[in-house]
Amino acid sequence: MNRVFVAGIGQTKFGKLKDKTLTDLIEEAGALAIQDSTLAKERIQAAYVGNFNGQQLGGQGHLGPLVTETLEISSIPAMRIEAACASGGLALLQGANAIRSGLYDVVLVGGAEKMTHRTTGDVTGAIASAMNYELEASTGLSFPGSFALIANRYFEQYGDAKEAMAQAAVIAHDNALKNPHAQMQKAVDIDTVLSAPYIADPIGLYDCSLVSDGAAFMVLVSEKVAEEIRPQASLVEVAGSGHGGDALTLAGKDNITSFNATLQAASQAYAQAGITAADVDLAEVHDCFTITQIINIEDLGFFPKGEGGAAILEGRTRIDGGMPINTSGGLKAKGHPIGATGISQGIEIVLQLRNQAGERQVKNPRIGLTHNLGGTAATCVVTIYKALDQ
Amino acid sequence: MNRVFVAGIGQTKFGKLKDKTLTDLIEEAGALAIQDSTLAKERIQAAYVGNFNGQQLGGQGHLGPLVTETLEISSIPAMRIEAACASGGLALLQGANAIRSGLYDVVLVGGAEKMTHRTTGDVTGAIASAMNYELEASTGLSFPGSFALIANRYFEQYGDAKEAMAQAAVIAHDNALKNPHAQMQKAVDIDTVLSAPYIADPIGLYDCSLVSDGAAFMVLVSEKVAEEIRPQASLVEVAGSGHGGDALTLAGKDNITSFNATLQAASQAYAQAGITAADVDLAEVHDCFTITQIINIEDLGFFPKGEGGAAILEGRTRIDGGMPINTSGGLKAKGHPIGATGISQGIEIVLQLRNQAGERQVKNPRIGLTHNLGGTAATCVVTIYKALDQ
Repeated sequence: MNRVFVAGIGQTKFGKLKDKTLTDLIEEAGALAIQDSTLAKERIQAAYVGNFNGQQLGGQGHLGPLVTETLEISSIPAMRIEAACASGGLALLQGANAIRSGLYDVVLVGGAEKMTHRTTGDVTGAIASAMNYELEASTGLSFPGSFALIANRYFEQYGDAKEAMAQAAVIAHDNALKNPHAQMQKAVDIDTVLSAPYIADPIGLYDCSLVSDGAAFMVLVSEKVAEEIRPQASLVEVAGSGHGGDALTLAGKDNITSFNATLQAASQAYAQAGITAADVDLAEVHDCFTITQIINIEDLGFFPKGEGGAAILEGRTRIDGGMPINTSGGLKAKGHPIGATGISQGIEIVLQLRNQAGERQVKNPRIGLTHNLGGTAATCVVTIYKALDQ
Repeated sequence: MNRVFVAGIGQTKFGKLKDKTLTDLIEEAGALAIQDSTLAKERIQAAYVGNFNGQQLGGQGHLGPLVTETLEISSIPAMRIEAACASGGLALLQGANAIRSGLYDVVLVGGAEKMTHRTTGDVTGAIASAMNYELEASTGLSFPGSFALIANRYFEQYGDAKEAMAQAAVIAHDNALKNPHAQMQKAVDIDTVLSAPYIADPIGLYDCSLVSDGAAFMVLVSEKVAEEIRPQASLVEVAGSGHGGDALTLAGKDNITSFNATLQAASQAYAQAGITAADVDLAEVHDCFTITQIINIEDLGFFPKGEGGAAILEGRTRIDGGMPINTSGGLKAKGHPIGATGISQGIEIVLQLRNQAGERQVKNPRIGLTHNLGGTAATCVVTIYKALDQ
């Protein structure tokens, strides 16, 4: 199996970007990634694009050739991958696997979503398409509702985690303040979070991730191309990838306080990279809600089951806390332009492993992990990145 | 590279299926494919699902886990692949490539679309999401309009093909009459086709494919599993796959009377299968409009450029004509439930290579090809199937 390297990264600022269309976002982030790779764009052989719902949010499907035409590389094969909020991570996995298998040497992977200032569509309806329409969305179930059920079940099994959830939000806002690409640029204190109105008890306003516009792209290359560009490009290895699945419905799952899809994806990714959770220096995990962060950092093996909340309260997930989580600000404060999220998580890890993360730089990290979840934990993609030995 | 085999096939009837939901269609076709494979469903390791637009047509995205939960195999990784009308063919290609690379030994590939009797969405808007929204759909361009421009340009380069287009429709209806799964079950004569109202000059009512509900699934296996089940299962090899791309917009293409995406995909698939166009015994090609069939059978190398129409008028594409095209009835008369189409084309070829095509059986075919196009020829997938030596 061939090795895979990230040769270039590019992303837009995340936010409510009134003046940017979906195509504008793709153009900006795609061009940055190609430029950063030091490769001529004609070297790109295929494109894998994560997009959750351009169709309901703007009448735009078929994003593979939309991306290639926008970036003026339209004579190559391209496809859209959709797995709800894990669309970006899964596009990256498909691109990495295409290189691993020897199919291509240079691929573009990316994701984009335009969720605000649209001319068509309804955001709430569009987001609900990530769950089962017939059995869930059409009855009025929402994602805050689903994750509130998960949180309440978690509280019953492991004790109340409301304060830990709030502290996760506080840390996310602190980190986002150090990230110029982040949507949310204000600190909050724990009392503000705890006294905010409920969206779905026990999930309050500050426990929820954001509605965002944004795009993120990467150029992935094989070892052969990596050797060629190594003098000028700043390479990071994609050392392991895992893809797990579970029932689409909440009711169809055996366990909702530990996600089967995460366990599967993590186990594959750790095995492929030849590491364990203890080797991971920092991670970007899918905090669509603060309770999800707690469950994820336990499922990934960073903390024992039921102890994720305590670790957050102790400051262990802060940038200098020993096990930094979501140094970018996460979905919670960096923002969540759905299809772009999985790629953007990887870009944060690449920046950290390149020591280019500025004010939020973790001290000399060697191995980073991203965790990207889709729907009510029905899809999970875990990716492990390694810094190259100098 | 590992070899790939079709072990099981299953599809619903195509049509306006008032009493069937999207989930019903998936359940029926998926269960048939698994049963036909003779494998226990627990052997399936991953699922690749082609769906064009469940989101605008029914509020349903995230079709990977929708399929796995519906078929009670929900603990495996699954994803939706979207490339407009080529979504099904591309899901098949991704599944086949996963086996070729050694990632899995047993995968489910399939496609489904519910286009009629919906509770949400608008079909015309949903279909238009396969083109560029900002530059094309929002200005009022439609697919019949796009392919009318293509037809008129073709007429200018190669002469009027209106009668050949009509004859393609007549043959498609004749073939569909012999296919119990086909939506259209009536013969038409050439005068009826030629005198039908125009949708977009020169494309008349009978030059257009259908709006349909339907699902189609296949179980693909590696050589190792193929050897194990060979005594009981009826195997066909997936001998070659190709994926080509072009600009999303009509205006962005260098040539609109020969499709670059088809040329690329065909060249890859022929090379991988180690054959040429002359070796192909029959083909299912993407006849979204009758003019498209003419262009496709030229681009695939079955007939010289500009001579596809004459071949149709001479009866050479009929079941007994020497180069049978769309024995199933094609998109034109079998129907076009978009995400299912690419898989269903493959099922027709498998039935023919198994000598199970009933009244429409071609005499002893050994090699069949499918051609699945997305949008205004912005994506193409070509797949080559080989009968096994007895």
